[in-house]
Parts: sequence; C-alpha cells; structure tokens
Amino acid sequence: MFSRADHGMERPAHPSQLDGRRRVVVAAVRPEIDGGRWPVKRIVGDVLEVEADLLIDGHDLLTARVLYRHESARTWTEQALAPLGNDRWRGLVPLTQLGRWLYTVESWVDEWASFVWGLRRKVDAGNDVTVELLGAAELLRAAAERAKDTEEDARMLVNAAALIGDPAADPAERAALALEPSLSAAVARHPERGNATAFGRILEVTVEPPRARFSSWYEFFPRSTGEAGQHGTFADAEKRLEYVADLGFDIVYLPPIHPIGRSHRKGPNNTLTAAPDDVGSPWAIGAAEGGHKSVHPALGTLEDFRRFVARARHLGMDVALDIAFQASPDHPYVQEHPDWFVHRADGSIQYAENPPKKYQDVYPFHFDGPDWRALWEELKSIFLFWVEQGVTVFRVDNPHTKPLGFWEWCIGEVKARHPETIFLAEAFTRPKIMQQLAKAGFSQSYTYFTWRTTKWELIEYLDELTQTSMREYFRPNFWPNTPDILPEHLQWGGRPAFVQRLILAATLSASYGIYGPAYEHMDQVPRAGVEEYVDNEKYQLRSWDLVRPDSLAPLVKLINRIRRENRALQDNATLHFHATDNDQILCYSKRAEDGAVLVVVNLDVTHAHSAWIDIDPEALGVTADETFQVHDLVGQARYRWRSGRNYVQLDPRTMPAHIFRVRRHARSEHDFEYFV
Amino acid sequence: MFSRADHGMERPAHPSQLDGRRRVVVAAVRPEIDGGRWPVKRIVGDVLEVEADLLIDGHDLLTARVLYRHESARTWTEQALAPLGNDRWRGLVPLTQLGRWLYTVESWVDEWASFVWGLRRKVDAGNDVTVELLGAAELLRAAAERAKDTEEDARMLVNAAALIGDPAADPAERAALALEPSLSAAVARHPERGNATAFGRILEVTVEPPRARFSSWYEFFPRSTGEAGQHGTFADAEKRLEYVADLGFDIVYLPPIHPIGRSHRKGPNNTLTAAPDDVGSPWAIGAAEGGHKSVHPALGTLEDFRRFVARARHLGMDVALDIAFQASPDHPYVQEHPDWFVHRADGSIQYAENPPKKYQDVYPFHFDGPDWRALWEELKSIFLFWVEQGVTVFRVDNPHTKPLGFWEWCIGEVKARHPETIFLAEAFTRPKIMQQLAKAGFSQSYTYFTWRTTKWELIEYLDELTQTSMREYFRPNFWPNTPDILPEHLQWGGRPAFVQRLILAATLSASYGIYGPAYEHMDQVPRAGVEEYVDNEKYQLRSWDLVRPDSLAPLVKLINRIRRENRALQDNATLHFHATDNDQILCYSKRAEDGAVLVVVNLDVTHAHSAWIDIDPEALGVTADETFQVHDLVGQARYRWRSGRNYVQLDPRTMPAHIFRVRRHARSEHDFEYFV
Repeated sequence: MFSRADHGMERPAHPSQLDGRRRVVVAAVRPEIDGGRWPVKRIVGDVLEVEADLLIDGHDLLTARVLYRHESARTWTEQALAPLGNDRWRGLVPLTQLGRWLYTVESWVDEWASFVWGLRRKVDAGNDVTVELLGAAELLRAAAERAKDTEEDARMLVNAAALIGDPAADPAERAALALEPSLSAAVARHPERGNATAFGRILEVTVEPPRARFSSWYEFFPRSTGEAGQHGTFADAEKRLEYVADLGFDIVYLPPIHPIGRSHRKGPNNTLTAAPDDVGSPWAIGAAEGGHKSVHPALGTLEDFRRFVARARHLGMDVALDIAFQASPDHPYVQEHPDWFVHRADGSIQYAENPPKKYQDVYPFHFDGPDWRALWEELKSIFLFWVEQGVTVFRVDNPHTKPLGFWEWCIGEVKARHPETIFLAEAFTRPKIMQQLAKAGFSQSYTYFTWRTTKWELIEYLDELTQTSMREYFRPNFWPNTPDILPEHLQWGGRPAFVQRLILAATLSASYGIYGPAYEHMDQVPRAGVEEYVDNEKYQLRSWDLVRPDSLAPLVKLINRIRRENRALQDNATLHFHATDNDQILCYSKRAEDGAVLVVVNLDVTHAHSAWIDIDPEALGVTADETFQVHDLVGQARYRWRSGRNYVQLDPRTMPAHIFRVRRHARSEHDFEYFV
Repeated sequence: MFSRADHGMERPAHPSQLDGRRRVVVAAVRPEIDGGRWPVKRIVGDVLEVEADLLIDGHDLLTARVLYRHESARTWTEQALAPLGNDRWRGLVPLTQLGRWLYTVESWVDEWASFVWGLRRKVDAGNDVTVELLGAAELLRAAAERAKDTEEDARMLVNAAALIGDPAADPAERAALALEPSLSAAVARHPERGNATAFGRILEVTVEPPRARFSSWYEFFPRSTGEAGQHGTFADAEKRLEYVADLGFDIVYLPPIHPIGRSHRKGPNNTLTAAPDDVGSPWAIGAAEGGHKSVHPALGTLEDFRRFVARARHLGMDVALDIAFQASPDHPYVQEHPDWFVHRADGSIQYAENPPKKYQDVYPFHFDGPDWRALWEELKSIFLFWVEQGVTVFRVDNPHTKPLGFWEWCIGEVKARHPETIFLAEAFTRPKIMQQLAKAGFSQSYTYFTWRTTKWELIEYLDELTQTSMREYFRPNFWPNTPDILPEHLQWGGRPAFVQRLILAATLSASYGIYGPAYEHMDQVPRAGVEEYVDNEKYQLRSWDLVRPDSLAPLVKLINRIRRENRALQDNATLHFHATDNDQILCYSKRAEDGAVLVVVNLDVTHAHSAWIDIDPEALGVTADETFQVHDLVGQARYRWRSGRNYVQLDPRTMPAHIFRVRRHARSEHDFEYFV
C-alpha cells in the first residue's frame, strides 16, 4: 500500500552543501530528456555532442571534461569541453559501439590557468610580480607532486618551480617561464580535481544500428506468394525477395507468421463467420499447432523460415517480424497459463473489446495481472527466440495497448543482450503516448504522416518531428499505406497520388515503408465505409502480377536508389522548408557533407501548379548570391537556380515532384559538375 | 580526491521496473527548473498551478492527485488533478504560508471509473451486461473493505454490491445503480492506490512575502541627511523617512552602515588619498570600532538604528540593508581570523584586484579557503544579526564574486528560520550567472534594464524575463540609476529622460527602485570618462534640497500611487507588447482581475512622435470588436480606443508617456465607468 509520507521520492542532491569548495555549477547538460529519465538515441559511428552550462563566481578560469563509457566498460573515458561563449561548453563523445552509453560532465577551477591569466596582465602593465612568482612556484610544486607518476612532467615542473621561485634569478626570465604554454600544458596534464563538481546525474544514449535511422521497408504477406492462388510458403516467399531487393528495400517485413486460431475466425472482408477454407487473420495468433514461437504449418517449418531469413540477408536485407502480443482463444497459453488473461465474473476469459464493440477472436494478455512477472518474462523470450532465428528487426503491433513500463523493461532487456535489434512501434494513438513509447525504447515509430496531406499540416508536423526535442528520441517511419490503412487520398487520387505520397514519404523521412504489391499496383478500392482495402490480405489470399506494365515498381526502384546515393536523405536533422507562394507547392531540402537535395512537390493531384520558391541559401549550404544547378534525379532535367526566388511548374499527370540534387559550379559560372 | 568510477552520480530511478502493475507514467510535472534541482518562487496567498502529463496504455481511465506540504508539515495534503486535454492535467496548491513547500504528483488506474465507462456504452447499445454486473459487485466489495473506517460509505458500498451482484434482481435496476454518480463518488473517496505511480521527484516552491514580487525601493545615504553639511545620523535619517513614505515607496534601502576602514581610504571622486576629514566609502567595511555587525559611530548606535527601523515600519516601509561581504584592511576579522583571507606568497593578505587594477582598500574573503566552514557560518550570522534588529530585506553587493553554492546554502539557512526575508542580488554580470544567483535563492535581481533603451532591446529583454522559464525564479528589479551607475542617456537626456526611465521602470517591472534624491533632482553630471556621478556620495557627504521646485518628487509620488491602485502593475506575468508602426513608440499592457493598464512611451527624449498602435484585444481582456475608454492616469485625458489600430502622439517635452487605465463601458456605448 502506498504511503503518504515521503515514500522514497528523493530531493535532488545539493552538491554545494556537501563541500563549499566545489565552486563550479554544472547545469543544463544536453542532450537530455525529462531530466535524464530517458535515453537519447544515436546510431553507431555518430559523435555525440555534449553541451553544458559551466558557471563560476568571479573571474577564475575553469576546465571541464565530458566523462563517458559504454555500459560494458568499467572505467570512464574523458574528453575536454571547449567554450562556445555565453558560459556554454561542448565536448564530443565518439559512439564506436552498439549499446547503451553513459555520459556526464564535471568541471573544476583551473588554478594555474587563472594565475597565468592574471600574471599576463600584470606583466603587460609593467607591475612588479615577484610575490606572484613565489605563488607560482607553490602551484608548480603541487602540480609536480600530482605528476609524480609521469617522470618527465614531474621533472619539468620541479625545475620550473625552482627557477620561478628563485629570488636570485632574473624576474623577467622567471615571469617568461611562468607564461610558457608548454609549462601550462604540463600542469594541465595533472589537474587538481579535488574540488571538481559533477553534474550529479548520469545521462544515457542508446546506440543502434544504422538502419534504425535510415531504412526502407517493404511489407508483404508470404501466404500470398503461392502459385495460382495456392497458400504461399516460405519457399515461395524466398523467390519474392529478389523482387523486393531489386526495388532497393533493406527491410522485408512480414505480418505474423504463427499458427492462426480457428475459434471466431474472421472470413474475407472481416466477416464474422469463416468458411472451412478461409485462412483467417494472422493477428489471431495461436492454435493447436503452437503460438508465438511457432510458424504456421502452411508456410513451412522453422527451418524454412531460417532459410528465408538467410536469403534475405544474402540480398542485403533484414527480415522484420510483426510481434502482436495477443492470443486467439486457441493459443496454447490459454490452457497452460490462464492467469495471463483477464477472467470475467462468470469464469470466462475476457476477449478484446472497445465497448460496445467485441473482438471475440482475440484475448488480450493481463499485463498487470497476478502472474505478470512470468508473463513478461515469456513475452521477452519471444523476442529472444526470433533473434535466435536470425531476426533483429521487430515491428510491434499496437504497443500502446500494453503498459508503457512493459516496453521499457522488455526492449531494455532484449537490447542489453542484442543491441543490434531494432523495434518499430505501430502505434496510431494520442501524440504523447506515441512519444512515450519512443522514450521507452522503440527505435522507430509509425506516425500521422499517413493522414497529413496539406502543405500546412506537413510543415507543422515535420517541424515538430525534426526541430523539437522529439528529434532526440522519436525516429519517424513514414508509411503511405498499410494493410490496415488505405487513406482517402489514395482512394480517389489515382497514380499521381501514389507517386506523390511515395516521394513525400521517401524524401521527408529517412525511414519509410510501403505495403506491397498493393502500393506498386495502386490498389485503391476500399471496403465500403472504411479506410481499408476491399478483399484485404489480412483475411484472405491474394495473387499479384509483379510485371504489370503500369506498376510503380520502376519509380520505387529509382527513389530507393536516390535515397541510397544521397546521404542528405538518410537523416532528418537538416530538413528545412523553403517558402513558396502557392499553397499546393511544398518545397524542402536536406543536407549532408556530400551535398544537398531539394524536393519540390505539387500536392494537388489533379491540377498543374506553378510557384515562386524563395530559396534559403543557408539550408542548401550555398552563399547568398550564388548561382547553382539543380538536377532533377527523377526527370533528369537541369536548371540554373539561385538564392531567393526561383520558378517551378509541376503537372501531376506527368510527374508531381522534382527531386533535385544541388550542384554547385566548381570553377567558373559555366563549368557545372554535371555528373555524379 | 575525485574518483573516476561512478562516484555517487546516480541513474534515475525506473519505477516501472519496480512494479509492472504501476501502469501510469507521470511526466513533465511543471513548474520545474532543471529537473527539480532548484525551487520555483511564489508569494504567500498564491495558488500554484501544478501540471503533469499522465500517460496510460489502452482506454482505462485514471485518477491523479497533487501531493503537497509545507516543509514544516509532517503529512501530505492532496488535491485532485483535472484533465486539460492532450493527456495534460492540472491541480491547484494553495500557498497559505511563507517558507518552502514541496509538491509532487501521483496517479493510478481508476478501475471503477473505467468499468462504469464501458458499462455505460454497453447498456446504451442494449448489450447483456449480467456478467459485467457480477464484476461490478466484486469491485464494490473491495471498495467497501477499503472504506471500512467510514461507516456510511462502507454501508452504502456493501448494499450496492449486494443488489448489483444479485442475479435475482432486475438487471436494468442493477445496471442503473451501478451507473449512479453518487455510488461512483463513494468509491472515489476510497481509491485503490496500491499501483499508484509517483512522479519520482519532489519539487519545491519558495513562498515569499508579497514585497518579493511587488516593491518600490528608495536608496539614500543616511550620512547625507545631516543639517548644513554635517555627517547625518540615524536620527536625521528618520526625518527623511517621511519624505520617502510620502513618495509612496515601501522599501528604504541604505548603503552599508558599518564602521569604515582608514587604510587606503578613498577620497572624494575615488581619489587614492583621503584627507583626514574624508568620510570614505561605506563599502570599505570594518575598522577598530567593529565590522559587519556594528554601526558607524557617526551614524549613531545600534539602538538608534533600531528606532530608525521601527519608524520606517510605522510608515509602512521595510528597511533594506546593503550586505557587502568584504573587509577593509582594518576589519577586526583580519586580525581575528587571518584564515578567512587569501595570503600571498610573502605572507601579506591579498587585496581585491582585476589585473592589472588593484583595490587595496578591500580584502575579499577566502570563500573556499581552509577555514571556509567557520567563515560561512559567520557570514550567515551577519544576516541573522540584522534580522534581530528588525531588518528583513537585504540587498547583497556583488554576489557573483562569491561562490554560487554559498548563496544557496546561506539564503536557504536564513530563510529556513526567517522565511519573511527578501534578498536582492546586485549582480551586473553574464546572463547565466545572474540567472544562477536567482536559482540559488535570491528573491529579486538587478537587471540589464539600466542600459536597455531602444524599443527592440526592451521588448527582447522583457520577453525573456517574463515569457520564458525565467519567470519562475528570476524576479527583476528595475533601477534607472544607482550610486554606481549614471547611465549615458541620463547624462544628456534631461528631464524627459528621467521621466521616461522612471515610468518604464515602474510600469514594466513590478519591482523597481531609484537612488535619490539624485534621481528626483535629475543629477546628470558624470565624473569625467566614467558612467558615474561626479562628487559621488559613495566618497563624500552631499546635501539635498528636498523642496526644489523642479523636483520629480510629485511625479514619483503619482507613479507609485498608480502602482498601488492598479494590481496589473504588481506582477509581470501578463506583460504584453502591442505592435506600433514607429520604432520610437513602445506600447505594452498588463492585466489583473481588477482591470488592465496600457502604457505608451515615446523613447525619443528630444522629438515628439506619433504612431498607430495595433491593440491586441486578448491582452487587455476586451473583445475583438469592442470600443473602450483609455484614461491617462498621468495626464488625466480620456480617449475612446478599440481593438486594432489607434492613434497616439507624445511630446517628451510635456510628457513622454501615457499610463492608461482601460475602462470598459458597462451598459451602453456612452456609459463609461468614468471613475475608479
């Protein structure tokens, strides 16, 4: 029972009360989320920029270090912080390894540097500094004592102390030696840190694989890869992998592959009664054949699956599994662990509901039930089981209906053993819940992009994702469609809509995905009254003709190639919107060391539009009066543009967007770098 | 010695790992500074608005409480939080007492409310709810058990459980009872809090006297109140109090009143050699007659001082003392506690310096020296000594040259015993140091206002002070002049400049002060080459003719009366700048329950200016199409204004500003509320 007394909520430590001689205040260490409660995210190879306010009374100079270590390291490594002005300092932490890293800052008064600062001014003013030089000798003797394990430094410091402290020596020579930079460097190698102030909190950064930041996902149903309408197998699906790899994707994502329940099985188009041959929904997980650690017999064996994963890896792709923590009434857990489910007053097990709607084919787990510890351990073991089968990427179904604390615990446990894992949160819910799931550990998140269509909506949402503190922990993954969602604008927008949404997703966000082949085939017919496909693969098999002449596959392939060849598109941090004078024309850019990409999109799928675009040169890395070339990587046209106003016209019936590579001319105005 | 291991820097607690059944995440509790490291500030009588994000998976409803207590209370008091939308909740904490208050938030899943929510929907849909009603009876029996100490509730809950759980009773009647709001209210009085989530940190608010927020300061030198050029005494200064009270000030602030050192005493105009009769600087504290706990014999006795304080209090004013923690070479501390000073290598005591400048009449204390604990205790005891003499307001000299940690400790200690004390930080230094002093405990702070003169500078600075997180801890006190500072614009701007700066200080900031009679008398002659008065009272006696016909005293009196009569001017939180089309015309408003004040200032002291002002109606609390009266409380003119554009013209030679009271008409368009 909760006690109303202080119950362990601690007041922050007040280091200054512990030792009055710790004069530096270390504050506002960044990056940091919610007072350090959650880790920030980076990918391996990044250099983390750690900043802090370092505050000191009076005029003394200070020294500061960022302390960091991989969680597996016993000792801290240090790097000096350098001042940025306005009492702000910065240090760099190279993140050379996957996993959890810790960092903090400490700082102390640099007595020698402070002394040298004053001595320099007194010498320049012609003051008598003989008393100061005696003080210098004292400081140097103390430094020599600290340096005693470094023979060369110790000798240098002792000798310097002797000369500088020698009243018989020439004062000018003594002062000159005290001001010698090499002497200061030697003292700095052996600082007096007895009164160092620590920030007081250790912050964390989760370091993930590169695909946590930059990834192209392709979702398909393996059971729809069979010949002539037969139930597809992993062997059939293996053949599909070459198609997906050829399109340039790097993550192949499969809906659940487990045995499917028979009780209350749904028929085609989500009907309540299934015929004996109906395949059911893969999200009704569990049957006599097994549960979350089994594969559906019609798909093959676990060994077949492992071969599928190996084939994908050979083609440069990771396989992502859909992890849906729920059970069909036929799941073995229901018999073996009744305590993992909610029991109604009549003894029956509570099915999923959203009153008054009932979902009797699905039993939710009782995450906060009496046997929650065993349940949590079992669910964690599901991830570990699939990691053993070669799967390191997980798309988690509806994580927002499971406790937030569960995800923090579970992802933390899995990543502690397998820091190479990537978790994508399929949560379409309230904004702060989606943010909280990301804070709790999900590497990537589904977003509202699927429904953001106007210029104003897109700019506002992308600015929130990329320019606020969300950028530190929430990595968006943009999906124009999913098996659950055929958004309205794809239902009536035709090919221009599919092209436009593909380009927006793939260039606004470093991670994006499509559900195919429905997307390449521009499937646009909804089941009546809902934002969902008719004859949805969720409930039935489908057959796809991959070589249809109107397929978007060639464009998808081109877009993915552009993403791979332009580092600007592989991160979101530099996203910048440029003003246009037409509400239907969206213009934005991203930048990397190898150059900038500028995208212009006509958001109106039915009419051509023109606009004047006001190019912000800083965002492109060009000078304010520079002329440069923009090379359309889709249409191959090249134009000469400049900072400020530029004209553009886009007809959605031909191509609703430009994806420009910005090419600066190298030597003269006419000598553009014409080829990559 | 500092250890490079984890050395006590703790990772934040992860409550979710402690108990998986604590499903609510409590986050972003506000107000909060730097993760709760520093307290926010309020005044007694305020109601603190505490907000939090409360996040829960799924659709369950939750309940939340803000827990708070005065530091002296043993137990927590609670108030419910109410939802604001977007998962944000707010609760109110009435701050009824001076001192340190603690607050935090906790939240838990409200099982009964969640059940009722679902039941309502099922009943409305005509579902069979008999199984649900059996579940309801279980929940009610558990609630009855928790309510067993509240007989009436327990009986009600037991009876309800019996009927609702009775299969023989009418299901509709049972459901209706379960949905009864009075039943839900009874359950809510006995919540199941076993799985409550605490925020995990306890936050603090320092509650101070009203004058910490709203105060009008008047600084004068008591030694300049003598008859005919004689050294003034406390008895003379007592007579001056009536003048100051008549002007409407509420804090009388005296430069240091202690014995003044003779060694290296400064002569008039800061000359290095003083004649035997020269009075010296009051900031060279300490002589044979005593130190920081003594009064200068020429001013009188401690008893005289106490009478002075009592007289001020009788006139409704507090006396503020200037506390300057430094010593003249003649201070008793120098002999009694040589360890409280820095010793040079030749054994002499280190005087103050800013290399190459030397201030040999002042010895700084060695705040981080070997005997720092005893020094700190002694310095604290100086405040406590003066509190015993009736002084509760302290203006601290140059606090930024003493350790930040010292102030946190010292002010904390003094306020723990005397929460009625107010501390004003006289720090003109780098922005973050000034902020840090306020975080460390200073009630009010000197500011850059003294040098901010252009429209752009004033708007930017005031927005920072009043619209950022600084508003939670940094209370500005605006001084147009001080004995140390005669800013350039007062040196050449003449009467218009003095009037304008007075009005800006007194209406932009709820706390302001002037150094008089120099200010009322528009003293404007600097010592050559410095931003300081010639013949400065810091180094010599001055005589002032209080009834000079050109004195600004009548205007000062009017301005202080306007401040007292308009609550809008007694706080800074509502400050809002209205756009004007002239860079010399500044317009701003403040608002309170009793009405709004709108100020328009011509910043050009030499030319008349006109402008169109774009009134933002929301800031004034008027509707978008409303016509209202603005009544100039200085010039007494009245105009009809409206939202949107209004014309204004101001000639600095007559009056550079309007201070308008906004008067809304009560019944008809012509029926203004003409009188207060």
